[in-house]
Amino acid sequence: MMQQDTIFAQATPQGYGALGIIRLSGPKTFNFLHKIFRFSDSKKNFETLHTHTIHFGHVFDESGIIDEALLSVFRTPKSYTKEDSAELTVHGSPYILKRIALAMVDAEIRQAAPGEFTMRAFMNGRFDLSQAEAVADLISSHSDASHDLAFRQFRGEFSSRIKELRKELIDFTALIELELDFADEDVEFADRSRLLLLVNNLQSETKLLIDSFALGNVIKQGIPVTITGRPNVGKSTLLNLLLKDDKALVSEIPGTTRDSLEDIISIDGITFRFIDTAGLRISDDVVENMGIERALQMTEKAEIVLYVADLSDISVEEIQNDLDDLKQRIPSFENKKLIVIFNKIDLLQEIPHGIQKFLESDTIFISAKRRENIAMLEEMLKETAMNRKTEDGVVVSNTRHYEALLRTNQALSRVENGITEGISQDLLSSDLRDAMHHLGSITGEITNDDILNSVFSNFCIGK
Amino acid sequence: MMQQDTIFAQATPQGYGALGIIRLSGPKTFNFLHKIFRFSDSKKNFETLHTHTIHFGHVFDESGIIDEALLSVFRTPKSYTKEDSAELTVHGSPYILKRIALAMVDAEIRQAAPGEFTMRAFMNGRFDLSQAEAVADLISSHSDASHDLAFRQFRGEFSSRIKELRKELIDFTALIELELDFADEDVEFADRSRLLLLVNNLQSETKLLIDSFALGNVIKQGIPVTITGRPNVGKSTLLNLLLKDDKALVSEIPGTTRDSLEDIISIDGITFRFIDTAGLRISDDVVENMGIERALQMTEKAEIVLYVADLSDISVEEIQNDLDDLKQRIPSFENKKLIVIFNKIDLLQEIPHGIQKFLESDTIFISAKRRENIAMLEEMLKETAMNRKTEDGVVVSNTRHYEALLRTNQALSRVENGITEGISQDLLSSDLRDAMHHLGSITGEITNDDILNSVFSNFCIGK
Repeated sequence: MMQQDTIFAQATPQGYGALGIIRLSGPKTFNFLHKIFRFSDSKKNFETLHTHTIHFGHVFDESGIIDEALLSVFRTPKSYTKEDSAELTVHGSPYILKRIALAMVDAEIRQAAPGEFTMRAFMNGRFDLSQAEAVADLISSHSDASHDLAFRQFRGEFSSRIKELRKELIDFTALIELELDFADEDVEFADRSRLLLLVNNLQSETKLLIDSFALGNVIKQGIPVTITGRPNVGKSTLLNLLLKDDKALVSEIPGTTRDSLEDIISIDGITFRFIDTAGLRISDDVVENMGIERALQMTEKAEIVLYVADLSDISVEEIQNDLDDLKQRIPSFENKKLIVIFNKIDLLQEIPHGIQKFLESDTIFISAKRRENIAMLEEMLKETAMNRKTEDGVVVSNTRHYEALLRTNQALSRVENGITEGISQDLLSSDLRDAMHHLGSITGEITNDDILNSVFSNFCIGK
Repeated sequence: MMQQDTIFAQATPQGYGALGIIRLSGPKTFNFLHKIFRFSDSKKNFETLHTHTIHFGHVFDESGIIDEALLSVFRTPKSYTKEDSAELTVHGSPYILKRIALAMVDAEIRQAAPGEFTMRAFMNGRFDLSQAEAVADLISSHSDASHDLAFRQFRGEFSSRIKELRKELIDFTALIELELDFADEDVEFADRSRLLLLVNNLQSETKLLIDSFALGNVIKQGIPVTITGRPNVGKSTLLNLLLKDDKALVSEIPGTTRDSLEDIISIDGITFRFIDTAGLRISDDVVENMGIERALQMTEKAEIVLYVADLSDISVEEIQNDLDDLKQRIPSFENKKLIVIFNKIDLLQEIPHGIQKFLESDTIFISAKRRENIAMLEEMLKETAMNRKTEDGVVVSNTRHYEALLRTNQALSRVENGITEGISQDLLSSDLRDAMHHLGSITGEITNDDILNSVFSNFCIGK
């Protein structure tokens, strides 16, 4: 695995900063480096550098010195990729980083593909495939919960669980295949009722993981929330309060919010994806009507629907009409959590007659303008999210893993049926191997170029 | 100078990347680090770490592990700031970096002000003030020429020149002040005609530096170029060709380019700031007329004016009118370099009669649509830029240095007059000290908090 070429990539984000890093990895890292890096201390040379040491010098190309640089040395196998590796830390100037990249190309070092450093780490056995995938999740994590999920996967919690399941299957299959070797003698090494029990256990374990995907996906992406209600009831003002900035266009003109904005907030470590929607009012304005269609589509995606009403300007009947309308137009509305928000309590003399009927569902009285009860609303959102959280087990958040688990489960069902129907060992064995294959594809024990390409093409360059 | 508190800042640009760095500096760096970093190898401890070594471990806060991290150790005085310093390299996730920053604050490490690391490097004598300023220029450099200028200043070329000038002044002043000590005896240690010669030399040297500012500024900012001409002559298409992307809105509708875009291109290492302007045609469209006013203002700032004409749709007389109009409306037009571009030669059967009169000025026939002669136009731009370049001496690119040199020069003029008019030694001495003061402020030999604050507040945080 170590016979690969030497690659480089910028490892820090694009843009101006104090420092920028270009990293290199591959067997010829230090052979190539002498073409572009010169030590300040002329007594140093690349052959005798110790791993995990830092050296001052200059990066140069044929036009001269590009920048001062610190060279960090990582010797095989004590590097991220387990290959000889190095990092050049220079001033965080896009021009300087670009010119060093060109100098690298001139020195015949190859620009790395997305995720290629992590792919090498995986290929060289630093971690398994699901851990490698967690690196990308870790970088893009945006809340305590999604960070926790990614970091646990990165540390191998999910992998160990999958490997345990797979080990049970391997033992199981070994017995079945032993029978196959003695097929003529019609022996049964594997007690069928005991095996059936084991398959059922594996099925329920994979089922648990499959079921955790809904939660895992929500943790990773954030819980989709939509704000809906008639024009000018204060939806944008409320969203801004929650987002604590002014991304939505707030104005006194009804129907101002024409674009469905999408924004992310984090309440005590739980991510919510907010979808701001155009007013519910049917309008003659074509652009606004387009907005309403989109809003309804958005609402369909949401798990939590915040319906905002301006109590000073709407009757109880009208609210009921709006809610009936939502229920009618959004097929899966019953599965969503509805929170009815009565806004503008600052304008209100008394609670309107008949409001009690709404108090069954989650209801809250706020003043977005005076910022009253906003914290309480956030608490309601958080509680709603907590209620969806299952026990603190291993959670699947990756679509590829989810699909592999589904296929594992399908194969296990075929095994179950096979045992019940007493099918031949070779057919049982084939289904068992199928289940093992899909489990193995998660951790990369079973892999191929297609899987690797699709996994690592989602990475950023330099990782 | 070393009795400062300990600071931290993110050193890599904002955004997602493979790696992110948080740096620390100050006498308690390693005392604080134990609150947030734990070595993987439990035998390691912060007291015995050698400088320029790298150590694997974890960053944590009270909620648990935030990320795996590499700790780079820099011991005083062998660090950028000359203080004890460290860098934590973690996954390039904004969430992770933010959480580590919060953990730092909890550990009572102070967030650094913009440029504070470089200010400490300056205060601790790593380099002088003009070199410190070059760090920011180096990071924001965007072309070979601006990089070269910044890097030479960073390496101290400009500083040495200033220090040489100041040394001559010091020697001079010493003699004058020696006379002051013997004032009663009316001696002249300093030969006045020799001194006058020296002052004149200093004056012409500072004058050279002052004059180089126009060039230095252009190198740093780019040479301002404007494209002008009637609507639909192909200005946007031409700009796009030069920018090699499609930032300007190109369409067949006359007057499409309503906003004055500003874009930077680099031709063989020389930066040009392109200003795309609205059409010259007087229009009834208010928005477009606003665009034209702005275009004229932009043209006033330009050093190079590209006038584009569609030869297939304009007479020689009309071109002459346009050029006369430009000359009339832009006061400094005569000082600019005008390049007349005849576009759409692909549509042309023959060269129109009377065109010869324009061939005196720089003229080029192109087809933006067919990309013909674009390289030749770039060559013309480059040559125009090269012609403004003076000999390869020290070039001033910093407004603060420019102003200090102007004041030095004014003080030197007072000294010159003083010598000619035979004023007293103490007045001469005062003017000489004034000149020395201003020269010294460039390299930071003379400084104060106002200067430091104004210099370093322009830096990014983390540098």
